[in-house]
Amino acid sequence: MIELAQRSGEFIKPYFGSAGLAVEMKSDASPVTAADRGAEELMRAMIAKRFPEHGIVGEEFGNEREEAEWVWVLDPIDGTKAFITGVPLWGTLIALKHRGQPVLGTIHQPVLGQLMVGDGETTTLNGRPVRVRECARIEDATVLTSDPIANPHKYQNGAAHDALLARARIARTWGDCYGYLLLAGGWADVMLDPIMNPWDIQALIPVVRGAGGVITDWRGGDPVGADSIIAASPGLHAQVVNALK
Amino acid sequence: MIELAQRSGEFIKPYFGSAGLAVEMKSDASPVTAADRGAEELMRAMIAKRFPEHGIVGEEFGNEREEAEWVWVLDPIDGTKAFITGVPLWGTLIALKHRGQPVLGTIHQPVLGQLMVGDGETTTLNGRPVRVRECARIEDATVLTSDPIANPHKYQNGAAHDALLARARIARTWGDCYGYLLLAGGWADVMLDPIMNPWDIQALIPVVRGAGGVITDWRGGDPVGADSIIAASPGLHAQVVNALK
Repeated sequence: MIELAQRSGEFIKPYFGSAGLAVEMKSDASPVTAADRGAEELMRAMIAKRFPEHGIVGEEFGNEREEAEWVWVLDPIDGTKAFITGVPLWGTLIALKHRGQPVLGTIHQPVLGQLMVGDGETTTLNGRPVRVRECARIEDATVLTSDPIANPHKYQNGAAHDALLARARIARTWGDCYGYLLLAGGWADVMLDPIMNPWDIQALIPVVRGAGGVITDWRGGDPVGADSIIAASPGLHAQVVNALK
Repeated sequence: MIELAQRSGEFIKPYFGSAGLAVEMKSDASPVTAADRGAEELMRAMIAKRFPEHGIVGEEFGNEREEAEWVWVLDPIDGTKAFITGVPLWGTLIALKHRGQPVLGTIHQPVLGQLMVGDGETTTLNGRPVRVRECARIEDATVLTSDPIANPHKYQNGAAHDALLARARIARTWGDCYGYLLLAGGWADVMLDPIMNPWDIQALIPVVRGAGGVITDWRGGDPVGADSIIAASPGLHAQVVNALK
């Protein structure tokens, strides 16, 4: 998994520098598409060579052997809007599932050189163990989200969501997968994602749990097949679920 | 000015890495305070040695010779909340004023190695000229702010502000001085800051203007003594001022 992260990061990084300066992002030849597809092809080829019997789920090239015992879940650029805006708060997500459960996950930010790996029991950042920090009150918390301000009413409970953010000490859109890295590394206390896809979530679960955090769907349920996420330190998670009911 | 940016950046950078992982930020011995004060002292000493007759305005150590012909304005860490959260969207602001007008400005992000310098006519990023990108409609724009979500009602016109963000194609809190770097570099179209201090604004003016952007206060007036900022590409600026009236 670390080899996949490092090789895909080397591939994607040069596109990030060239993505700004008024480049249009809409055609299929855009830097984001080329980086996304190229990195996924590269990772698929590495997996096929080493573990030909494993399954692969990816956003760009669909699913292969989805029912295999071991399945890799690939999202080369999570945080496309950050990527095209020249903001290094995107990352590469890689998960390994065993019989449907994510047992190993990586969040990699290659520009900042941050590689976070979790197995549900331990999470490391560039090899050093990390833990969520303690926080007892939302009023003392740093609460992050991917996209709360553009469309507050698309959320499951928009008014409660706004009220929660207004209570937090710091509330920002430093989101997508980087928000989970900040939570697991002890820099933030809550990360919310009201809209998620299956390939976005799997890597986050062993990373957050390995750092001592709690990760569920919007109602406090199993995150594996969820379409929304609440991740937080143990002292805050139930408060956040209740605040958003 | 480039020497000031590089030397202060080398001083601040090691504190950024150590600022996370549950470090408390409230005492005077906090990393953010040590980095801020130490970098300002270092820059003041460099200026005093080379230009003893120049004035200096800084957040941490007050004003010296504020009425001099040439005055330096220093803000070692603009974006303290990003700094303490482990998010590299903070920067060092340095301005040089001549007879009250900012004639040279720098936005420096030392972790990302981005040094933007503007003189009102030209702006460069790491030595290469940059320009704002063209955008005609708010619906196509990337609109950035420093802090819209925590306290929407502290703004001059909260409802209009929310409505503007809801119209934008992308709206995010990728703000503080980094939002102006993204605007001037052609990655974003509008940057809003409803609450500003004199030491935050001066460096931004020659940077934004040198890249072809328009920068005013909240009502379209002179930004030099303003307490709020609207900065945008020429095709959007008047639309944003009108939308926020």
